[in-house]
Amino acid sequence: MKIALLGPRGTFSEEAAYKFDKNPEIYLCNDIIEIFEKVSKGEVGYGIVPVENSLEGSVGVTLDLLMSKDLKVYREITLDIHHSLMVLPGTKLSEVREVISHPHALAQCKNFLREIKVKTRNFPSTAEAAKEISEKKLKEAAAIAPRVAADLYGLEILKDDIQDRDSNQTRFLVISKYDHEPTGNDKTSIIFGLKHIPGALYHSLGVFYKRNINLTKIESRPSRKALGDYIFFIDFEGHRKEVHIKKALKELERKTTFLKILGSYPRG
Amino acid sequence: MKIALLGPRGTFSEEAAYKFDKNPEIYLCNDIIEIFEKVSKGEVGYGIVPVENSLEGSVGVTLDLLMSKDLKVYREITLDIHHSLMVLPGTKLSEVREVISHPHALAQCKNFLREIKVKTRNFPSTAEAAKEISEKKLKEAAAIAPRVAADLYGLEILKDDIQDRDSNQTRFLVISKYDHEPTGNDKTSIIFGLKHIPGALYHSLGVFYKRNINLTKIESRPSRKALGDYIFFIDFEGHRKEVHIKKALKELERKTTFLKILGSYPRG
Repeated sequence: MKIALLGPRGTFSEEAAYKFDKNPEIYLCNDIIEIFEKVSKGEVGYGIVPVENSLEGSVGVTLDLLMSKDLKVYREITLDIHHSLMVLPGTKLSEVREVISHPHALAQCKNFLREIKVKTRNFPSTAEAAKEISEKKLKEAAAIAPRVAADLYGLEILKDDIQDRDSNQTRFLVISKYDHEPTGNDKTSIIFGLKHIPGALYHSLGVFYKRNINLTKIESRPSRKALGDYIFFIDFEGHRKEVHIKKALKELERKTTFLKILGSYPRG
Repeated sequence: MKIALLGPRGTFSEEAAYKFDKNPEIYLCNDIIEIFEKVSKGEVGYGIVPVENSLEGSVGVTLDLLMSKDLKVYREITLDIHHSLMVLPGTKLSEVREVISHPHALAQCKNFLREIKVKTRNFPSTAEAAKEISEKKLKEAAAIAPRVAADLYGLEILKDDIQDRDSNQTRFLVISKYDHEPTGNDKTSIIFGLKHIPGALYHSLGVFYKRNINLTKIESRPSRKALGDYIFFIDFEGHRKEVHIKKALKELERKTTFLKILGSYPRG
C-alpha cells in the first residue's frame, strides 16, 4: 500500500502508518500540503495527516486543507503518544549526561528529566535526535523519541513511557480519493457554513439531536472571509449511507450556506 | 489613561488605542502575555489585545489567556485594516525601486505591487519598515504600513488603501480588571465547557435561542485535556446585568462543566 506521510522516518506519523497497514510502502513528504497533493495526483493511494493532539490542540493546516481540497477521509487512527528514552546499545542510565529531542517532547517529559538531572538540547524532531545518537555514536547522550525510532536507528530503549501525563493522544486521518464502505460502527466528518439568522447553529444541531445522532467533535474556525463568520467541523456517529444519516444530511443542507461531506469511515 | 499594547510604535494596535482614547499614555509590550500581566498587576488600567482578524483568523494566544487569566473585557474595537504606501517627503511613485513591509502586508497588497512592478523585502513589522525608510533616509524605497506610522516617522503618504480586499478587519479587546456598565447596546463574552452527554451543545444554545438572544460569535477550541473535549467562546447581544441575560446565564451554568463570564461591554 502506497502511503504518503510527514518525514523524517521514525516519527509518530510512521507509527500511525503501521497501525493502518502492516507493510506500507512509505513516501516521505516535507509538509502536509505535499501529502494532500500526492494523494490528489494519484501518486499514492493514501495519505496520513495529524488532525488533533490532546495537549497541543488542532492542526490548523490540516483543517484548512480538508476544507479547500477535494479528498475524503478513509480512516481515523488515534495514537497514544508514548515517549521512550533511547541510547547506543550498552550505555547505562547513570552514564547519560545529555538528553536530546524535540522541545515539545522534552517539555512533555519534564518530571522524568528533573529526576535524572541532566542537560537537555533541542532538535528539529524526535527522530532526528535518535539519528544523531546513532550516527555520531554519542555514548553519553540519550534521545527522547517514539519506540519506532529505536528500531530504525539501532538504539536500545532504557525506559518507556517517560511522559508526565498519560492523556497525550494524537488523532490522525487517512485521506484518500474515496471514503470507506459501511462497517456497522462508523463515523462521518462534515464541514458546513451557517446562515446569518438567529438560532442558525441551534437548528443545525437539532437535525442531529432529534435523530439521536451523537456528535463526537464540534469545532468552529473563523471563515477568514469576514469577522463573525465561522465554519464548523463536525464528526458524528453513523455512516452517510445509512437512511437516518442521509435524511439528517439532507435536512442540514437546507439550513447551511454550504455542506461538505468529508466522508464516512470506521470508528478508530 | 495608561494603556499597554504590543510594540513597536506605529502599528494597528496603536491605532486601536487612539480609537479607545484620544490621549493615551502608551506602554509597549513585547508579547500578549506581558499585556495581561501589566493589567493584572495594576501597572496600567487597560490592555489592548488583538483577538481576531477577518483574513488570518483567531489569535490563539489571546483566547488562551482570556481562559487562564482573571481579567475582564471592557470594550471591543474593530478596526478596518487600511494599508498605505509611504515614502520620504518628496519621493515620487515613479522613483520607488523597492517596497518593504511585513510579509502579511505585502501579501495583502499583491495586486497593487504587481501593477507598480517593484522588488519587495520583508520586515518584522510594518512599523519597522516605515522606521527604516525614515532613519536611513531611503530615497528609492517605500513602506507599506498604517497611516499612524507616517505621522510617527515623518513620512509622506503616496497612496491610501492599497490592499486587495476591503474586508480586512481586526477585532481588538480592551482588557481590564472590571467590565463596562450597561449602556443599552451591549455585548457579553463568555467561555464554557460542555458535559459529555448527547445534545449538550444543542441544549446550551437553546438557552439563548428561546430568549431571542442573538449570538455574534461561536468559536470552539480543543480543551487540550483530552481528544473530543472542547471549550466554547461565545459572544451575544445584551449585558450581564439585564434580567433576561441573568436568567440565561444561570440556566447555562447548570448545563455546562464551567462557565466563565468575561464581561459585558458596549457594542463596537
